[in-house]
Formats: sequence, C-alpha cells, structure tokens
Amino acid sequence: MLYGLDRILRGHRTSAGAQSDRRFSAAPCCAKPEPRDYSLPNPTWSPDTKRLYEELSRDRSWRRLPSYDSHLHHRAGMSPEVDGKTRLFTRNLDQDGVGFEYCMFYNEAEKRTLCIFQPGPYTEGPKGYAHGGCIATIIDETAGTVIEYSSGASVTANLNINYRNPIPLGATVLIDCRVEKVDGRKVFTSCQVRSHDDTVLHNEATALFITPKSGGLKAKL
Amino acid sequence: MLYGLDRILRGHRTSAGAQSDRRFSAAPCCAKPEPRDYSLPNPTWSPDTKRLYEELSRDRSWRRLPSYDSHLHHRAGMSPEVDGKTRLFTRNLDQDGVGFEYCMFYNEAEKRTLCIFQPGPYTEGPKGYAHGGCIATIIDETAGTVIEYSSGASVTANLNINYRNPIPLGATVLIDCRVEKVDGRKVFTSCQVRSHDDTVLHNEATALFITPKSGGLKAKL
Repeated sequence: MLYGLDRILRGHRTSAGAQSDRRFSAAPCCAKPEPRDYSLPNPTWSPDTKRLYEELSRDRSWRRLPSYDSHLHHRAGMSPEVDGKTRLFTRNLDQDGVGFEYCMFYNEAEKRTLCIFQPGPYTEGPKGYAHGGCIATIIDETAGTVIEYSSGASVTANLNINYRNPIPLGATVLIDCRVEKVDGRKVFTSCQVRSHDDTVLHNEATALFITPKSGGLKAKL
Repeated sequence: MLYGLDRILRGHRTSAGAQSDRRFSAAPCCAKPEPRDYSLPNPTWSPDTKRLYEELSRDRSWRRLPSYDSHLHHRAGMSPEVDGKTRLFTRNLDQDGVGFEYCMFYNEAEKRTLCIFQPGPYTEGPKGYAHGGCIATIIDETAGTVIEYSSGASVTANLNINYRNPIPLGATVLIDCRVEKVDGRKVFTSCQVRSHDDTVLHNEATALFITPKSGGLKAKL
C-alpha cells in the first residue's frame, strides 16, 4: 500500500526545454523567463470570479497562493526550471478560460484553503455541466494544497465526494477545504463546494492524504 | 439533493459550429463530416495499450465502445451535431497522447466495462505520476459508461476512491467497473484499477449513480 510514496515526493531537477509563450511571463533580455502565475486574473474571469478574488485579496487573514503549470514551482528547494514535457493536469490547456480557471487563498490560522473556481467549456461531462472528474480534480488539488501549506507535500490516499447539485460550465464556485485532523502521517480534510453567492451546495467531500515518513519535505527532495 | 438531474439529462439539439480537423474524420465532398472515434488506436498508444486492445477486440464477449469528444454522440436519439464550443473533459486536448488515451469494452452478460487507459504527460500530479483527479476522472467515466450501457444515462452521486499505488505517466492500466446493485434509481458500481500485467493494484473505488425518474432515457431527452 502506498508503494513509492517517498519516491514520488522526492522529485528531481530537470533541464529547461522548449517552452511556449503562454507558460512564461516576459522578462528582460538574457534573464531567465519567469514562469507564469496562473492564479492572477485574466480576461476570461467572470465578474463573480473577479469579485471573489478582490474580496479575498483585501482580507489580510487570507494569502493568495501562486499557481504554475508544474508542481515543481510550488515546492521549496526545488528548481524553478521545468522540462517542458509534462504539465500539471489542472493547467494543461493552451487557451485561457476553456479549462480550469482557479485561484487559491490560504488562511494559516485556520489551516484552511479557499479556491475560487470557474470550470470552462472544455471540462464538460453532462451537457452544459462540469464533469464529475473535473470536480474531483479541483477538490483533490485544493485539499492537497491546504496540506502542502500546513504539513508539507503529500499524496492522496482517499477521496470521497458527494455530488449534490451539478456545476454549470462557466459558473463561479468556492471550494472550502480545511484540515480536520492529523494522525501521524495521515492528514484528514473536509471540503465543501458552494456557489459564489453561497446559495447552492454543489459538493461535500472528505480527503485523506499521507505525508512523507520522516524528516519533513526538504529531506525527501 | 440532486437538483436539476432531469434537466442535465435532457440535453438539446445544437447547431454545428467551427470545427478543427482533429475532431472529425475525412468524409466525401458535400457529406457531413463524421465525428472522430477516439477509441481507435493511434501512434501514441504504447505496445501494452495496443496489446490489451487487440486481446479484447478478439474476445467476442466484449464489445468495443466508440468514444467522441462530446457526450451527445453517445446517446441514442440525440443529434450527432456538436456546437464546437464545449468538449468532453476527457477528450479536450488537441494533441494525441498527451492527455487521456483510453478505449472501453463492454460485456453485456456481466454488466461490466473494461477501460484500457494510458495517462499522458499533461495529466501530471506528483512529479512523473498521474494526478489524483485524473484517476478519479477516468474511474467516473468508466463507471458512468457501464451504467449508460446497462441502465441508461445517469449522473454521479458519490465517488469513493482509495489510492493504493501511483500510476506513472505513460503506463498502461486497466479499469474494471461492474454494476453491483440496482436499487430503484440508484445504481451501485465497483471499480479496480490495475497495471496492464495485473501485478499492481493502483486503485479501488465505488461509485453511485442516479438514473432519471421514470420513462427511461429517451423520454428525458
């Protein structure tokens, strides 16, 4: 069970390869290009998505988390270079607005992450609605993030999701994940997905993650 | 709970829009283009993926299921046209081999679906491995398919997944989903994800789906 956990948390440095403009921000001549932070607003964000972003940005108890198209950028001590051959599942489309548009905020005191999420037209499952797997993905990503910032990197051990109401494509929802319990290497989280105006409960979920055996994250990298 | 189920199963006809070549097969002049069947082999399939495909194709108890980039193509009584604006989440990338490569086979007598799955480099979660949400997605899709062919269209109500061993990017795995119980509108399924050579258990899952209230699928379309 959970064979290879340490190996997959270890990661490794990679050499930079061919990159598209979308994935990197403009940088002065001769400087290394900066990877693009996808959690900043772009023109495809709806008014509801922008409003929630601005509200959380103003609240000092919440910290906006950067988001890149490779997990490597997220982890302390790892090279900011990417090999250009793989992409984070939630950031794998070339066009803004058609897939996962999201931005996360972290509350250190509450060990809690809020994710503003706008599923695009390329995340369809039932006609006009986000795929059940797309919803599972953003829940997994948000729960993994609250653990990464509170306990260090981890891997998913269990994901249990109730689907209460479908999420229309293009709608803005808020995913609220918090750490419920830490038991040795096991970290238990709970999540709710609600509409941007808090009137509809779309999903309830629990997620169990496992952290490395010992020595913390850096020792495993 | 499950508000809007009937509405999301109803669907509607849409007018054809702009399409890329990737999404449609060549057709004679003036004939309507045929949507591409993505469950046929392509050059990005690994030897293990091709071998499993050939083995299941030879077995007469299994029927290969076509797969398109819109759910509309799958459903009896619905227009084969697509609006070009949305894409099925699992078929939303322009390039073969980088995302979800998969093909499903259905066994009518056993109410069981086997899905040969090869996650590409754009489905990454932990470095070098498929994202937990990507795995949840293909499980949801496979479980939904076995219900679609055995009971009719449905929506996901619960997904409960144990992650035993990570799936390396590019590996070939087999998802085995079967109907365990039908209780009114509730259909209970169980799934296992195993390596192509049956030596590694990657995931175990249960999925609960809800079918339409009455009158079968066609009455709801």
